[in-house]
Amino acid sequence: MAVESCLTGVPRVGMGFDAHRFARDARPLWLACLQWEGTGIEGDSDGDVAAHALIDALLSAAGLGDIGTLFGVGGDSAGAGQHGGPMLERTVAVLHQHHVMPVNASVVLIGNRPRIGSRRMEAERMMSQAVGCPVALSATTTDGMGFTGTGEGIAAMATVMVTIAEQ
Amino acid sequence: MAVESCLTGVPRVGMGFDAHRFARDARPLWLACLQWEGTGIEGDSDGDVAAHALIDALLSAAGLGDIGTLFGVGGDSAGAGQHGGPMLERTVAVLHQHHVMPVNASVVLIGNRPRIGSRRMEAERMMSQAVGCPVALSATTTDGMGFTGTGEGIAAMATVMVTIAEQ
Amino acid sequence: MAVESCLTGVPRVGMGFDAHRFARDARPLWLACLQWEGTGIEGDSDGDVAAHALIDALLSAAGLGDIGTLFGVGGDSAGAGQHGGPMLERTVAVLHQHHVMPVNASVVLIGNRPRIGSRRMEAERMMSQAVGCPVALSATTTDGMGFTGTGEGIAAMATVMVTIAEQ
Repeated sequence: MAVESCLTGVPRVGMGFDAHRFARDARPLWLACLQWEGTGIEGDSDGDVAAHALIDALLSAAGLGDIGTLFGVGGDSAGAGQHGGPMLERTVAVLHQHHVMPVNASVVLIGNRPRIGSRRMEAERMMSQAVGCPVALSATTTDGMGFTGTGEGIAAMATVMVTIAEQ
Repeated sequence: MAVESCLTGVPRVGMGFDAHRFARDARPLWLACLQWEGTGIEGDSDGDVAAHALIDALLSAAGLGDIGTLFGVGGDSAGAGQHGGPMLERTVAVLHQHHVMPVNASVVLIGNRPRIGSRRMEAERMMSQAVGCPVALSATTTDGMGFTGTGEGIAAMATVMVTIAEQ
Repeated sequence: MAVESCLTGVPRVGMGFDAHRFARDARPLWLACLQWEGTGIEGDSDGDVAAHALIDALLSAAGLGDIGTLFGVGGDSAGAGQHGGPMLERTVAVLHQHHVMPVNASVVLIGNRPRIGSRRMEAERMMSQAVGCPVALSATTTDGMGFTGTGEGIAAMATVMVTIAEQ
């Protein structure tokens, strides 16, 4: 009876989205819990839209608000200056407190750079470690169209499955 | 055996998307089944993109077409002049007729306004009542980029899990 | 015990996104595994964003990379000149090799054309046959906003549920 062993709680799905501008200064580029070549992303934290979309998806599936609920908003928020990895770990700790367990996650990057191909598995490993379940990463461009196509910014979408323990 | 008690049917996932312009006239703003301060959204109905994306996600998970299939399109459609709540209730009634039960849903608003933080739980309660399952709401901006960033319009994405009764 | 019979493996969710420009030449329009009236979409393959978003969602749920991993990128890629149907079939064959079975899928088209209403069921049947599970198709516009609203291009998002056999 395969199903009994695979989910020990009520399954829920969640979705998240985030978008930020590429910075004009020389700050480093952090995405999907890795540093990449090229200039970075604006934001109070490191601007890691992949991590932020994933955080929103996890919190939404758990019914626990969104990234602003947990970390606040602005330069004095709890996320200010933080990297995506520790923010994901903090999110998952809150989920665990509410008896919510991530099952798997899927994150899509939409933008011109970085090209993730050669480091996809490294990024997936970092995010999977932070969340404690398989996290897959894909990436696509928008053929030069829209703010993700002109290079003005970058966006990410995420979907997750979690289980909530029955009390 | 937690799983047996949590799902009594075949699970399915679904996704929906909607986008509308902010109106230039003084019509009221309806979103996520609530009225908010500020000017409203264009549309044959009340322009509630959160409700509409959720309706599309529910119908898609159930394999029952989309919002145009159920309500028609244009000023003489069944959705014309309607609020999101009754449209969601009508959608779920059709799902029930097909033995489809919503399990949970996650809706993401993308736009500059309204700021949902202080009324998130109220909005979630209204949508959850209409659908008959937990509905989570998150919101994000696009840092001034694209049509959601200039304030021209607002978009919403939704994902749902449903179960379909085995006949 | 309905659940036991509905899923024989570990459930996973996945998400995909794709966007392409409408072509200026007279190439045929292929979308959702069907040919439609009107001019087509740019791309190394037939530009079928619905099929491509679905391929990314399937691969992501399975933890097997994305469409570039499987088919390569550019005019000499394995996808070059191919239609969405055979690309979907090839994707699902790879999933089966890894003991991953699609459960259902939901695809959203975002753009001004084609109007899918009268051929939705035909498109759903073609995609469902290619993937071997129910695939639902919905469509929406962006009220003239953004690159999908001006008619510059078309986008698609997809979400899927799969099961992975326990070894």
